[in-house]
Amino acid sequence: MTEQKATNVTWHEQRVSDKERCELNGHKGVMLWFTGLSGAGKSTVANTVDHLLHSKGNHSYVLDGDNIRMGLNKNLGFSAEDRAENIRRIGEVGKLFVGAGVITSTAFISPYREDRDKVRELMGEGEFIEVYVNASLATCEERDPKGLYKKARAGEIKNFTGIDDPYEAPENAELVLDSDSKGIDELAEEVVAYLESKGYLKA
Amino acid sequence: MTEQKATNVTWHEQRVSDKERCELNGHKGVMLWFTGLSGAGKSTVANTVDHLLHSKGNHSYVLDGDNIRMGLNKNLGFSAEDRAENIRRIGEVGKLFVGAGVITSTAFISPYREDRDKVRELMGEGEFIEVYVNASLATCEERDPKGLYKKARAGEIKNFTGIDDPYEAPENAELVLDSDSKGIDELAEEVVAYLESKGYLKA
Repeated sequence: MTEQKATNVTWHEQRVSDKERCELNGHKGVMLWFTGLSGAGKSTVANTVDHLLHSKGNHSYVLDGDNIRMGLNKNLGFSAEDRAENIRRIGEVGKLFVGAGVITSTAFISPYREDRDKVRELMGEGEFIEVYVNASLATCEERDPKGLYKKARAGEIKNFTGIDDPYEAPENAELVLDSDSKGIDELAEEVVAYLESKGYLKA
Repeated sequence: MTEQKATNVTWHEQRVSDKERCELNGHKGVMLWFTGLSGAGKSTVANTVDHLLHSKGNHSYVLDGDNIRMGLNKNLGFSAEDRAENIRRIGEVGKLFVGAGVITSTAFISPYREDRDKVRELMGEGEFIEVYVNASLATCEERDPKGLYKKARAGEIKNFTGIDDPYEAPENAELVLDSDSKGIDELAEEVVAYLESKGYLKA
């Protein structure tokens, strides 16, 4: 657990309740946590889901791994400790977005099960949907969209997930997407269909 | 400047543009940065503004100092370095909210001019509105809603803004609220009138 440093702080209830924010939006806030290897398609699927949700009038947003690492988490690297803090911060930010009534997609490798489970625990009942974008290492390495696997194999990047750092696959993900054999649009449709069937979307 | 640690990251454009998110909401995203001494009324005014905005159908949210210190920034204390990092993270989170098209109020003492100016620089033209909730130290100490001034005077709290840590008042705030002589509702109405006059709100 991250220790609470500031002691003279008190929780303030917001004057506008989460429920009232959801009423304005026409749907609840929820976190879609996309996890998987680099190159599995997390960002692309998340953005496609977000686009579909938006076009149906839902209030949605994407917290993208690389973008967050260039902003909020620019002072974090890839050590196990920094990865944990990276995910912790994202979880907390996602929780704020969900509180604001936003359907929030996050696209982070988030390789460690314990870190993902901590985020799940932060969230309320039904507010955390773990989406495992499942692609084999072979597939990801063949795609290698940013040339990172090549660099990792050459030893130019250290602590690279799947090469010299582990990826712990989810055991109880709400959704498992088969990114080895299906295309982006098909996978995104699967996510939206799931949300629709569970009553998460705007009527 | 905070050093960028991760090197193998690339900025991803979101598939849904900020403009499209604003079209759905009926207004742009903007950050209302409330600053002032503890007890000046930042949180209360911010929450009242938020309530007024919400009741007019605007998509809004409050990032509250104490709440953030119990979540995202729980690993930060009150040293000058930690205060700077506190404000930096809030600025980055606020920027994400503004990108999502939300009228985002932040209520933090944020005592150092340099830290506030860094947040201003993060934001686009017209996206940062500094609101100085101006109450004298005497007023705040008399109110002392959390009993913190009493503790600070007794030496039980160190680095307390206004007592043994400086507050650098804004020099170019878009709005200065006179919290010594006016009540919360009047101050909140001033903020909303400003936003209306500048075309920030839903028509």
